Amino acid sequence: MSEVYAARRERLRERCAGSGSAAAVVSRPANVRYLAGAAPSGAVLLLGRTEDVLVCGRPPGEEPGAERPDAGLRTHVLESRGGDPVVAAAGQAAAQGAETLAVEEHHLTVARHHALTSVAPALRLADLACGVEQLRLVKDEEEISCLRIAAEIADQALGELLESILVGRTERHLALELERRLVDHGADGPAFPTSVATGPNSGRGGHRPTDRRVEEGDFLSVCLGSCYRGYRSEIGRTFVIGTSPADWQIELYDLVFAAQRAGREALVPGAAYRDVDRAARHVLDAAGHADGLPPRTGHGVGLEIDEDPQLAPAAMGKLDACVPVTVEPGVHLPGRGGVRIDDTLVVRCEADGGPELLTITTKELLAL
Amino acid sequence: MSEVYAARRERLRERCAGSGSAAAVVSRPANVRYLAGAAPSGAVLLLGRTEDVLVCGRPPGEEPGAERPDAGLRTHVLESRGGDPVVAAAGQAAAQGAETLAVEEHHLTVARHHALTSVAPALRLADLACGVEQLRLVKDEEEISCLRIAAEIADQALGELLESILVGRTERHLALELERRLVDHGADGPAFPTSVATGPNSGRGGHRPTDRRVEEGDFLSVCLGSCYRGYRSEIGRTFVIGTSPADWQIELYDLVFAAQRAGREALVPGAAYRDVDRAARHVLDAAGHADGLPPRTGHGVGLEIDEDPQLAPAAMGKLDACVPVTVEPGVHLPGRGGVRIDDTLVVRCEADGGPELLTITTKELLAL
Repeated sequence: MSEVYAARRERLRERCAGSGSAAAVVSRPANVRYLAGAAPSGAVLLLGRTEDVLVCGRPPGEEPGAERPDAGLRTHVLESRGGDPVVAAAGQAAAQGAETLAVEEHHLTVARHHALTSVAPALRLADLACGVEQLRLVKDEEEISCLRIAAEIADQALGELLESILVGRTERHLALELERRLVDHGADGPAFPTSVATGPNSGRGGHRPTDRRVEEGDFLSVCLGSCYRGYRSEIGRTFVIGTSPADWQIELYDLVFAAQRAGREALVPGAAYRDVDRAARHVLDAAGHADGLPPRTGHGVGLEIDEDPQLAPAAMGKLDACVPVTVEPGVHLPGRGGVRIDDTLVVRCEADGGPELLTITTKELLAL
Repeated sequence: MSEVYAARRERLRERCAGSGSAAAVVSRPANVRYLAGAAPSGAVLLLGRTEDVLVCGRPPGEEPGAERPDAGLRTHVLESRGGDPVVAAAGQAAAQGAETLAVEEHHLTVARHHALTSVAPALRLADLACGVEQLRLVKDEEEISCLRIAAEIADQALGELLESILVGRTERHLALELERRLVDHGADGPAFPTSVATGPNSGRGGHRPTDRRVEEGDFLSVCLGSCYRGYRSEIGRTFVIGTSPADWQIELYDLVFAAQRAGREALVPGAAYRDVDRAARHVLDAAGHADGLPPRTGHGVGLEIDEDPQLAPAAMGKLDACVPVTVEPGVHLPGRGGVRIDDTLVVRCEADGGPELLTITTKELLAL
């Protein structure tokens, strides 16, 4: 794997050089992990003129099971606890003869930026902006296979839950049980806080589980994901509790399903982000649900659960192949509940079979 | 409760005025919650010249069970999703006629700081520094009662675990079960990731649970805490698995227990932070464990699990009454394991009975 990280750093170095910086300090944890193979707490990566260094506040990988940084990268552990790795990295950049240092202004605090200025006053600080995030957009097959496993784990956890008795159990308990099952099946942990929503709460994006119990006739919507080797998947499904869904439930389900399918089918390389959003959104708009729709119908996933691209009406940009995204439209009717259907897919060209669905749990309306 | 938040904001306003700022924007979530009663995701608090405003990216308290902001505070929800509440708050500060605006430079990113400057170029930006964190140091009785409940919940969860069969179960499973029990007993959730460490892992601070199974003869160290109404407790205990601890285990346990007691007994109003640390550390140093001791033996708790004060050799400052802290010395012998004992206590003067122990689970060496 060492070459992978070195190649990523090389691509970033070219970008930096292109904008006049011979050195950069990367501080955002997911970016550090992407370039160094691990991001021990507080560690930063110096992309140096003569050498790259992972600067850590304490020895990395102390605990069993912790990720190991790229073996081809020098690791420097600060001697005094409480020192700031960003400041130490800037000192090393200056010692390597850098005149300009790019930093992640969208991550670094003003106070740390001041500290940099005072420790290396001769260094000109520039903005690396979202340079690393842009590199992270298109995934390699190794990354996609981690996402695939992350999605499989969530499918397994969800499948097991559906076989158990649900009526009478609280949203909180179901969410905790799902998270335990994720870990049982080999996840590092949940990719984000598991959402379980019943009855009037169902269909709400990001609903925080409450003590409400599952009742006959409820919609039950669940959104979960697992984190596997740092990569995060997302799946959302809505079920109905009891033997026969009401007519309004079937209608609403079919509508959201149609919107979600339209979104999935719009996932082709070259499609504008906003057009994918529009494909899904239009179906719901046309059925009179324009008000109260969520601001976006999907987003990228990877080392973070919420990455670019944003599938939203005002988003700029076009999809590339090998970009994993969620498609997750939903409708929530206040007081009654609603439906959300959420998949993680990888954009692929038609010759490769079109969008690759990672979350394979059925999207039929199951009555549990 | 509304008066409590208003009084906190008034104290902050006096501080700001003292340093020449008529207005401030508070962005650090725990600080927003302290002053506004709730911190909806991304929300910031404008401490204004004529009015205080909670500026949110989306409506707060949408979900059932979400905290409600102080009813006496105006809430402003941004119309366009994706706008930055910090920028909107600065605009309102300018509209209220403020000339200087204090911001939390230790929390605000450089990019957001630039955005402030461009939206309100006439506004002089100053540093609020850790003004709110300093107010948060000494807790009122309402806060302490939340901490007391948080500690009780963790005691209950731990007590139940001790009654179950442990041999053969993995660290990960025990940790997940503890977290489930915390929620069962009414916690909002765990205060921090629960640590369960067995055998050679035992006694390690912040150990991340692995798939190692509990074996006869192991030390088992557990560190957990619950979050109740935002307030976070911490408790750590070490047990021995099987009928009779080995001599080295008894010796090591007695030593760490003596260190922890010395730390607890040093908790009096007016004691220097470093002296509390030294009281506990000295016992371990004298027994030949100076190397490899953690950099601190305790820290404050409250709305965050790791607040000031730091009980560490180089910490500056003295304890006040009503400051809750942990006392948590430990020794880890590489390859063999170790002991950590961790309590949450509130500093009280002698007339009030001395330090108040919130985490009451026994500290005898239990053989399970």
